[in-house]
Amino acid sequence: MSKLLVVGTVAFDAIETPFGKTDKILGGSGTFVGLAAAHFGVQTGIVSVVGGDFPQSYLSMMNDKGINTDGVEVIQDGKTFFWSGKYHNDMNSRDTLITELNVLADFTPVVPETFRDAAIVVLGNLHPLTQSSVLDQLSAQPKLVILDTMNFWMDAALEDLHKVLKRVDVITINDEEARQLSGEYSLVNAAKKIHLMGPKFVVIKKGEHGALLFNDGKMFYAPALPLAEVFDPTGAGDTFAGGFSGYIAKSEDISFESMKNAVIYGSNLASFCVEKFGTERMEALQSDEVHERLKVFKELTQFDIKLT
Amino acid sequence: MSKLLVVGTVAFDAIETPFGKTDKILGGSGTFVGLAAAHFGVQTGIVSVVGGDFPQSYLSMMNDKGINTDGVEVIQDGKTFFWSGKYHNDMNSRDTLITELNVLADFTPVVPETFRDAAIVVLGNLHPLTQSSVLDQLSAQPKLVILDTMNFWMDAALEDLHKVLKRVDVITINDEEARQLSGEYSLVNAAKKIHLMGPKFVVIKKGEHGALLFNDGKMFYAPALPLAEVFDPTGAGDTFAGGFSGYIAKSEDISFESMKNAVIYGSNLASFCVEKFGTERMEALQSDEVHERLKVFKELTQFDIKLT
Repeated sequence: MSKLLVVGTVAFDAIETPFGKTDKILGGSGTFVGLAAAHFGVQTGIVSVVGGDFPQSYLSMMNDKGINTDGVEVIQDGKTFFWSGKYHNDMNSRDTLITELNVLADFTPVVPETFRDAAIVVLGNLHPLTQSSVLDQLSAQPKLVILDTMNFWMDAALEDLHKVLKRVDVITINDEEARQLSGEYSLVNAAKKIHLMGPKFVVIKKGEHGALLFNDGKMFYAPALPLAEVFDPTGAGDTFAGGFSGYIAKSEDISFESMKNAVIYGSNLASFCVEKFGTERMEALQSDEVHERLKVFKELTQFDIKLT
Repeated sequence: MSKLLVVGTVAFDAIETPFGKTDKILGGSGTFVGLAAAHFGVQTGIVSVVGGDFPQSYLSMMNDKGINTDGVEVIQDGKTFFWSGKYHNDMNSRDTLITELNVLADFTPVVPETFRDAAIVVLGNLHPLTQSSVLDQLSAQPKLVILDTMNFWMDAALEDLHKVLKRVDVITINDEEARQLSGEYSLVNAAKKIHLMGPKFVVIKKGEHGALLFNDGKMFYAPALPLAEVFDPTGAGDTFAGGFSGYIAKSEDISFESMKNAVIYGSNLASFCVEKFGTERMEALQSDEVHERLKVFKELTQFDIKLT
């Protein structure tokens, strides 16, 4: 079992969907990645920053799940990063209503001594320079570096993004972002171009249409679980990345065959995330539920045509 | 091996895509269903109508592939149904430029005597009353009736569509059409409502995002093969239906497990259809190519997580 280091946001979200709305609740990419990875029982550490307004109870909840939060800096006279968004009826698009960077504006991540030798590193959605600075602090080359990013950084810091991509093994990115980064409409061609930027493995997340894993001409497809209701998609992509990296950290196997299982686990955990607002479902999730849903994923995808 | 009866259009298409454009070429739902089903070596008969302008060579080509065209009426002083369309850059949407119904306007299908006992019947995209009249001519209850339809008939002949749906075992329909027919956005809920309209099996085609099979609370997902280039999507949905029904006719097994294989074959054949304009790729397709691609579909979808 490998040590897993996650850098990402720990934040407040306020969410409105056709099913209702929330006040400020727990959110952030680092939070969702960590909660998903925690299901694999691996030693997980989060590097992030929060303000004095961040409840200790949230950190305690994470600690209770085995997540090390020594790397979450608390700036007592600062305010926690806050995002507010409203989803449209189809749940596939959303409007950002508020983004208050607050303490995130001057965030300089410090990796705790105990996680500088982490074998698996997840660079959650943050400025590419922040992602790079985490890699700079490691005492040894990690076994696998996984990066998540978004269109915002392609617009605002493309050169820095290209630099950090050269140091990354796996990129997880959504379909529109893959098209923007590569300039290719076809996801097959997009993955080829992104390979050339650095990552040997490209995972393209297609939301309700599942996720594609590409590596050196090989492809694998993990469907999203078709659901009667998607209650709140917030954090689903980060939960996918957390399930992916948690599985890899547990298995210590970075082969393509192992990554197939990892994207299935990513999709499995993400299918729970969207069932309730924010982190609610992920906080309550039990390992037997994940196990039962794995059976559903098998029934959904496995067939028996004999090849002669 | 069961007899397969297909009713659908045999037509001329003129197609424009970002890759080029064609003059009038062979098209039609019956044509694509038949060419796909022919790969399973089942006795396939097409019921349709063409005009005096329809080249005998097209019918001969189909006959050479083992497709019986006795049910394709030729109206010597009439003109063949003609459709022309232009695809947008993303290939997911298209504009219809021309629709000339011609001989299709007064089409009254006549099922040849030799196909009145067909075990598997495909009701291709046509007026629901035309689809019903084919069922009326059968000498025995078929083992499986598969219906394809489109939004046009939901707008123009919804009541007739509901009547024929009561006589149907499997409906193949695209995602937007499933939403329109059911009034439900979630495809899981849409399938539930469509089940109540008659079909025990609901296949929802999502184009480049694959296809979902629903039956009595069970689900199966067949991905579309991710392609570097989709050259021309025309006929892909009909080819999917032809691959699906051809496999069922060959296996004579209408269980859910068998239908899983059928949707995989449907997706397999459709992945070839889009590689060239119109029927070109399907006319040239060899069975060893289908077999090789089945391996690709296995690699794309099969994983090995042990359930304990």
